[in-house]
Amino acid sequence: MLPFRTLINISKQSPVAVYLQIANSLVNLIRGGVIKPGVLLPSTREMADILQVHRKTIVAAYEELHVQDWTETMPRKGIVVSQRLPEIKPRTFKRERNKTGYENNAPFVFKSLLPLTAARATSSLTYKLVINDGFPDARIAPVSLLLKEYRRFFDDAASSALTMAGEKAGSINLRTAIASFLSGTRGLNITSQNVLLSRGAQMAIYIAAAMIIKPGSTVVVGEPNYAMANMIFEQFGAKLLRVPVDENGIDVDAIERICAKKKPSLLYVIPHHHHPTTVTLSAERRMKLLQLVRTYNLPVIEDDYDYDFHYNHNPILPLASADHGGNVIYIGSLTKFLAPSLRVGYMAAPENFIQQAAQLKLMIDIRGDNFLEEALAALSNAGHIQRHLKKSVKLYHQRRDMFCDLLENELAGVVSFTKPQGGMAVWATFNKKYSLSSISQRAAAHGLFISNGSTYNSGNINYNALRMGFASLNEKEMKDVVGIIKKVL
Amino acid sequence: MLPFRTLINISKQSPVAVYLQIANSLVNLIRGGVIKPGVLLPSTREMADILQVHRKTIVAAYEELHVQDWTETMPRKGIVVSQRLPEIKPRTFKRERNKTGYENNAPFVFKSLLPLTAARATSSLTYKLVINDGFPDARIAPVSLLLKEYRRFFDDAASSALTMAGEKAGSINLRTAIASFLSGTRGLNITSQNVLLSRGAQMAIYIAAAMIIKPGSTVVVGEPNYAMANMIFEQFGAKLLRVPVDENGIDVDAIERICAKKKPSLLYVIPHHHHPTTVTLSAERRMKLLQLVRTYNLPVIEDDYDYDFHYNHNPILPLASADHGGNVIYIGSLTKFLAPSLRVGYMAAPENFIQQAAQLKLMIDIRGDNFLEEALAALSNAGHIQRHLKKSVKLYHQRRDMFCDLLENELAGVVSFTKPQGGMAVWATFNKKYSLSSISQRAAAHGLFISNGSTYNSGNINYNALRMGFASLNEKEMKDVVGIIKKVL
Repeated sequence: MLPFRTLINISKQSPVAVYLQIANSLVNLIRGGVIKPGVLLPSTREMADILQVHRKTIVAAYEELHVQDWTETMPRKGIVVSQRLPEIKPRTFKRERNKTGYENNAPFVFKSLLPLTAARATSSLTYKLVINDGFPDARIAPVSLLLKEYRRFFDDAASSALTMAGEKAGSINLRTAIASFLSGTRGLNITSQNVLLSRGAQMAIYIAAAMIIKPGSTVVVGEPNYAMANMIFEQFGAKLLRVPVDENGIDVDAIERICAKKKPSLLYVIPHHHHPTTVTLSAERRMKLLQLVRTYNLPVIEDDYDYDFHYNHNPILPLASADHGGNVIYIGSLTKFLAPSLRVGYMAAPENFIQQAAQLKLMIDIRGDNFLEEALAALSNAGHIQRHLKKSVKLYHQRRDMFCDLLENELAGVVSFTKPQGGMAVWATFNKKYSLSSISQRAAAHGLFISNGSTYNSGNINYNALRMGFASLNEKEMKDVVGIIKKVL
Repeated sequence: MLPFRTLINISKQSPVAVYLQIANSLVNLIRGGVIKPGVLLPSTREMADILQVHRKTIVAAYEELHVQDWTETMPRKGIVVSQRLPEIKPRTFKRERNKTGYENNAPFVFKSLLPLTAARATSSLTYKLVINDGFPDARIAPVSLLLKEYRRFFDDAASSALTMAGEKAGSINLRTAIASFLSGTRGLNITSQNVLLSRGAQMAIYIAAAMIIKPGSTVVVGEPNYAMANMIFEQFGAKLLRVPVDENGIDVDAIERICAKKKPSLLYVIPHHHHPTTVTLSAERRMKLLQLVRTYNLPVIEDDYDYDFHYNHNPILPLASADHGGNVIYIGSLTKFLAPSLRVGYMAAPENFIQQAAQLKLMIDIRGDNFLEEALAALSNAGHIQRHLKKSVKLYHQRRDMFCDLLENELAGVVSFTKPQGGMAVWATFNKKYSLSSISQRAAAHGLFISNGSTYNSGNINYNALRMGFASLNEKEMKDVVGIIKKVL
């Protein structure tokens, strides 16, 4: 007889019932070829004795094997392993015990992606302070109002309709609210049919890129650029054509020279508070760019994630609000209004593009979180989102001034930067004497997360710079952050 | 002078300040080439007179144009449109007014996707009752507990660390909880490093497919199959090899014949309560399949979305729990435990696959909703998720019996079905005399959403069948649903 005592592991601490542990162990022995088809199992009495459990437990375990079709009852013989099961070449017990399918690397071929070079902490919980990339302050978000609205849908039987019979492009109520918001604040002449909801601006960029890029496509991007956008484009097989970004934004003359030679498949621009450098694309360049777009029918992703947070004057109207012949895919986000974890973004584009994009989104994320979308629509229609936006812009404006003063006063000669006209971060270039990677390492020991800057580097260029998000830091936190940086220089 | 009175539209009802409406209109006229570079604008006094607004409003509008760099001040002359702006060929005023970039279809080429044939309502709000695809009942979800946990993170400054310095594959706490849950309930020998979190099982399928499929790959699927999975595979350029599904699940002998000829790139199986037919893959076929997987090193997506809801006996251990040599990518979901809108799924796979998959997920959805993931981890660690699961399984078991009785008693001769061993839906085939598409249409008039079945059809096959989700319907709702169907036959 097989050494069942050794082969079957029972743990009284496990939340899994003992009878089921026994049944599962037996299934594994059958599947592994240790117990072969046709083999007679010990009687329930014998097995109970071997395993030192109550006989009823074995009866339950055998019953489980039986209903799952692993065994059959032979009259006047007992319970045998089903003869219909295929026979497995037996292996040594030793090798079979605790054998797992996940010991080794995957044996099949799969796509290997470019690594994102950002240093990531193994445990985020060791950090007391974080310099993020430019995130809103979740602490001031109208989250109680939002969750109150959100909660309602869970009690309502009719909500089920939202999930099954809802719109593929996302909640029609939220899309309507966004269309009206974009038309009011940015002059976009659109309806809800031009709007697709996504998980943050990120998914909107991914979907737009998936729709337009083929292997071998060329995509014009700024240098530097939002690293994740570059990754997406390269992921789809595009060749990046990098164009300089200066204090007036992306170099439109350089884009024109590219178009004159060969029309690229796509242009990606960040007109407000470019990521990472925070510069704003000037009015002059925007007009030139519009001409190019019309002349060449050039598809553009206008990633205007930061439009609503401009402090010096009103933000400049996007390309999407002008006559662009339907070429501009406009992308933004509500995440910046609320909290980095509440990922609701949108894409505005011609209706036929939105319809196809919605089809792709369905494959990636089905219909998203309908309840959250409906709750946000309700908050927006009641004016709460707009009120919160006003309040945040005022607060972040103050925090920008406070943070820039601190950098100037406390880190002069260490950090150079241009005060951003808006947004939630300062693009801070560190003096080459101070390596960001060692600052980052040493700051961690003081409980401060600060990027080592590698995410912002591209190719061989080491900017020794990072985006320092100020919007989520209050005055004390800012001072603590700067204090730790000074200490570890 | 230009007819500014006609060109500039002011609405006192608009939430946008009047000065900004005027500034934006002027920007549009400049961008459209109606007002050319170098042109002198009317004085503030004149313009105030033309537009019948206070002079201070015009001063503010001109100030706005100036800080945005659209205009410059010429000493002793006045405000002129910036001469640095490129000149635009003027158009007629008529054509320019209310010109929008989104009038027409996109003028550039983009990917056109296969349409999903499901009939979708334009407004979900007209439905009082919904027969869904097999969703849990959101009304019984422990949502108050969840939102209480969730809420906490918004007040905590340290939460910011989760968003910036967190793990690419998702919350380490939730991944650890899931690894331990999968090992306890399914015998998977994994750690958190084998787990990737996603937005529902859907995104996990998408990511796994994106990693494995190249144009021209072959993917073995059941016929019928989960339509969205087929769409994903075809989207990535795969050729589908369709294999029959009978009452014991997918035909493994047919898969063997395919492998013997030429190894396919991927196999997609749904072992429990196959979608749409609800059949369970038998123990015998699972063993044969495991042999095939080992023999051919065949990559498998095991979509076991319904494992936790089995009523007749314990569910059968997945392929992923046996020795599969690292070939099985195991996919599941917490969405079924909670509510269809709370989309948290997972993938368990070899560590190197998970690392690359996490990289792709980052591009699609950055780090997801960290707060939700942490809140779920806390609920799971406190045992709430497990308690709720037990409660739901008991309730859905009762509802399955009740619903099947109703169908048998009230719709005999109309609907044929096999009582499912688990899951949240019955695969109901309607008698050819009764066309589902007309039933669906007529039911809508009675406030009932019932699928017309087209999503479940494939190629030329019209099954005249649908999944009737019972888990989210209480007794009264079930009776109402069946009553309406009887009425509209």
